[in-house]
Amino acid sequence: MPQHPPTTPARLEDRLAPILDLLQKQQVVQAVTQRQAQPRAELLENLLHRQQEVELRRSLARLNGPDAAHLLQMLATDHRLLVWSELPVRTAGRALIELPEAVAEGLIERTPAAQLDVILQELDADELAEIAEYLPREALEKAKAQLQANDRSWLESSLTYPEDSVGDIMSRDSLIVADDISVNAAIEQVRSAAELPSQTDKLFVVDRHKHLVGVVPLISLMRHDGEHPLSAIMDRDLVSFFPEDDAEEAGQAFERYDLISAPVIDDRRRVVGRITVEAVMDYLRARAENLALAKEGLSADTDLLGPVWQGARERWPWLCINLMTAFLATRFISLFEGTIQQLVALATLMPIVASVGGNTGNQTSALLIRGLALDQVHRDTLSFIYRKEISIGLINGLLWGSVLGLFAWGLYHNWLLGLVMMGAVTLNLMLAALIGISVPLLLDRFDRDPAMGSSVVLTFATDSMGFFIFLGLATLALT
Amino acid sequence: MPQHPPTTPARLEDRLAPILDLLQKQQVVQAVTQRQAQPRAELLENLLHRQQEVELRRSLARLNGPDAAHLLQMLATDHRLLVWSELPVRTAGRALIELPEAVAEGLIERTPAAQLDVILQELDADELAEIAEYLPREALEKAKAQLQANDRSWLESSLTYPEDSVGDIMSRDSLIVADDISVNAAIEQVRSAAELPSQTDKLFVVDRHKHLVGVVPLISLMRHDGEHPLSAIMDRDLVSFFPEDDAEEAGQAFERYDLISAPVIDDRRRVVGRITVEAVMDYLRARAENLALAKEGLSADTDLLGPVWQGARERWPWLCINLMTAFLATRFISLFEGTIQQLVALATLMPIVASVGGNTGNQTSALLIRGLALDQVHRDTLSFIYRKEISIGLINGLLWGSVLGLFAWGLYHNWLLGLVMMGAVTLNLMLAALIGISVPLLLDRFDRDPAMGSSVVLTFATDSMGFFIFLGLATLALT
Repeated sequence: MPQHPPTTPARLEDRLAPILDLLQKQQVVQAVTQRQAQPRAELLENLLHRQQEVELRRSLARLNGPDAAHLLQMLATDHRLLVWSELPVRTAGRALIELPEAVAEGLIERTPAAQLDVILQELDADELAEIAEYLPREALEKAKAQLQANDRSWLESSLTYPEDSVGDIMSRDSLIVADDISVNAAIEQVRSAAELPSQTDKLFVVDRHKHLVGVVPLISLMRHDGEHPLSAIMDRDLVSFFPEDDAEEAGQAFERYDLISAPVIDDRRRVVGRITVEAVMDYLRARAENLALAKEGLSADTDLLGPVWQGARERWPWLCINLMTAFLATRFISLFEGTIQQLVALATLMPIVASVGGNTGNQTSALLIRGLALDQVHRDTLSFIYRKEISIGLINGLLWGSVLGLFAWGLYHNWLLGLVMMGAVTLNLMLAALIGISVPLLLDRFDRDPAMGSSVVLTFATDSMGFFIFLGLATLALT
Repeated sequence: MPQHPPTTPARLEDRLAPILDLLQKQQVVQAVTQRQAQPRAELLENLLHRQQEVELRRSLARLNGPDAAHLLQMLATDHRLLVWSELPVRTAGRALIELPEAVAEGLIERTPAAQLDVILQELDADELAEIAEYLPREALEKAKAQLQANDRSWLESSLTYPEDSVGDIMSRDSLIVADDISVNAAIEQVRSAAELPSQTDKLFVVDRHKHLVGVVPLISLMRHDGEHPLSAIMDRDLVSFFPEDDAEEAGQAFERYDLISAPVIDDRRRVVGRITVEAVMDYLRARAENLALAKEGLSADTDLLGPVWQGARERWPWLCINLMTAFLATRFISLFEGTIQQLVALATLMPIVASVGGNTGNQTSALLIRGLALDQVHRDTLSFIYRKEISIGLINGLLWGSVLGLFAWGLYHNWLLGLVMMGAVTLNLMLAALIGISVPLLLDRFDRDPAMGSSVVLTFATDSMGFFIFLGLATLALT
C-alpha cells in the first residue's frame, strides 16, 4: 500500500480527520485498551472482526512517519496506545524520532520490550542517538548490538556529548571530497554516492591530512566549468562548529548566516560530523516550548494528554516548593497580627501590594530571559539594565502607587493609610525589578535554565516583601 | 576594505570584543550622543580627531550585515545609536532586516528621514517587505518609488497579506522551469541564471498553463542522466502552501518534512512565491520570544536596552489592568472584614490559598498553550483535558491541602481552621485548573495569542476566588 506523500498543512488535517472519526467510534476499543495489562493478542482478537478496525489499520498503514507522529501527539493516552500498537514497524520507528520528548517517553514506557526491540531495529545510528536519552538501558544495548562496528562506535561517542551541545544534535554522514580534484570529479562523487545525507547543500573539502579547508555548495558545482580545480571554487571562509559548542549559539549562527548545513570539526580541523538546519530547528522548537513550562516549574516531559495520576505526581515538587514559600511569605504577616487587629483594612489592602510586585517582577524577568537569549546581557549593559528597571519601578511605583493611595484614602478615609500604600507599592516595585533581574541571572551563571521555576521564586520574594513592607510601614505610621 | 566572513559563534564573540572595548572607552562620545538632538555633523566634528573613533569606524566597516545586527542588539541605546550612525549604508540596510523587531523599530524612529531613505535604497522588494510594517509611511513610499514597476507591484501585493500568514513571510524569487525540457536543459537554466535566490535547493516545474506540477531537487539533476525528460524525474508529491495559510502551521510542515524551500501557489496552482527555511526559522524564533513576553502582558517591541521613559510607559496598560484586578480581588476580602476581626489568623493564611491556586493555574495554562501549538487540543481531547486537570486539582488539593491544614492546626490550635484550609485549597486548585484551560482557549477561539496577558487574568481569578472561598468557608464554619 503506498504511503501518503507529504503535503500542505490543510491536507494533513483532512487526512487525519477520518482516522480521528474512526477512533471516536471505537467505544469498545477504548474500553478494552484502558485495561492496559491485557496482552495485545487478546486485544486484537476482540477487535479483529470489526469492520472499523480494519479500516483504521488500513489508514494507519498509509501514513508516513512524520504524519503518524503528528497524529500520535494529538491523541489522549488510550487512543494513542491503540494507534501506536497498530502502526507498521517502520512507520513507528520514524514517528518515534519525530515525537516531542513528552509523548515519545510515555510511549516507550508502555511498549513491551520485544516490540520496542523490533521498532528500534529500523533505526540507524543517527536516529538512535536522537532518542537514546529516553530509551531503557537494555533496549539501547540490544539496538547497539545490531549495528555495525563503526556505527556502534559513532553512536557511543555521540552519547558522550553533553545535552544542549552541538555534539548532541549533530549527525554523522557528510559528503567529504579532497581538495586536489576537479569540479567534474566532485560531481562524479555526488552522482556515485550510494545514499546522500538529508539536507546536503554543500560538500566539505579536506586536504591530504584530512583537515577541513573549505566548502563547495552544490550549486557552485553546477555553475562552474567542470575542468576547474575544486580548490579554486571552494569557499574558504566557512562557518564551522566544535562538538562542545552551545547548540543554542549554533542555532543563532544558522539564523544569522542562513545556513542549511555546516561541518563539525575537532581541534585539528578534522570533520567529526555535520549539523543541519533540520536538527537546529527541532532543537530550537523544543527549547522554546520547554522554556514556558520551565518557568512554571514543569519539566519538558510533562504531557497534557498523559494519564491523570502521572500528571498529579509531576506537579508535586514545585507545588511543594510553592506551598513552603507561600507559607513562609505569610509568616511575615503573622509578625504584624497586632497591627491588623487594630486596622483590619490592612488585611484587605496588602494583597494588592504583593500582586503588583509579582506582575512587575515577572515582566522584568521575561525581558531579561529574552535579553540573555539575544546576547543583550553582558558587563557593558548590566549596570544599565539594573538602573533602568529599578528606575521604571520607582516611576511606576510613585505614579500608580499614588492612584492606589487615593483609592485607599477614599475607601477608608485615612490619608496616612494612603501614603503607606503609595510607599509600599513604590518600594515593592523597585524590589521586584531587582529580583526579576537577579533570579534569572543567577540561574544562568550557575548554568541552569534561566527561566527554571523563576515564577515561583519571584512570587515568593514579591509576596513576602510586599507584606513586610506594607505592614511594616503601616505599623510605623499608624500605631 | 574586505568584510569579515561569517564564522563560528566563538569567533564572532572574539571579533566583537574589541569593538565593545572601544565603545567602553568612548566616555566623551557617550556624553555627546546622549544629547540626541545634536546634528550628526557636529557630533562627528567632536570625535573625528580621536584615534579610537577612527579605529571604531574601521572595525565597523569590516562587519557584515548579520554580525552588525548582532552587535547592535547587544548595545544599550547610546552606544547603539553611535554604532548605527557609523555603519556603512549597505551594512546598515542588511543589519536592519536581521534585527529583532524591538531593536529595529527603535533605530528607525531615531534615524533622520534623509539617512533612512539612503539606507532603504540598498534593499530590494523582498527585504523591504520584511521590515515594511515598522517603516514610517513616507519612507516606505519613497523606497517603493525607487523600485521597478514589477518589484513595486510585488511589494504592494505582499503587504496585503495578514500578519502570521505564509504570504507575510514568503519571498519572491524562485527558479521555475517547464516540464517539457530535459535534465540537461534544466541544468543549463541553473547555470545561466544571473542570480540564484538564496536557499535554492529545488526547481519548481510548471506545465504550459503555468500550473505547478512538480519539483526537482538540484541534487536529482546532478544524479540523473542529462537526456532524461524533467517530467520523468520530478517529484509530483510535493508540499506547497497558499499565501493565506498560517505561518505557524507552515513552520510545523517544514519541521515535519525537513524542507529547505517550498512553493507558494494560488488556487489555480500558479506559483506566486516561495517560502524558505530561513524565513520560517526567523518567524518561529520571533514568535517563541514574543510568547513569553505576551504572557506577562508585554508586546514584542519592548526592548530591554531601550530608554527608561519608554520602558516605564510600555508597562502602563497591563500594570493598570493588574492594579484594577488586584483591587477588585481584595474587594472580596472586604466582604469578610468582620470575620477577620474575630480571627486575625485568617488574614495570615489567606494568601497561601491564593498563591497555590495561581501556581497551579499557571502550570495548567502553560501546558495548554503548548498543547495548542502541538495540535493536541481538539474536540476529541477537550473533555479529557478538562476532566484530567480538574482531577489533578482535586487530588493535589486534598493531599497538599491536608498538609497545609495540619500546619494551620499546629499553629493556631484550631482544627476547624485546618479543615477550612484544606477545603479552600482543594476548591481553589480545581477552579484554577478550570480557568487555566479556559483563558488561553477563549483567547485562541477569538484568534488572539493564547498566551496574551494570561498571567494577569489568571492571577485575578485565583486570587479573588481564593480569598472568597477561604474567607467564605471560614465564616460558615467559625463564626
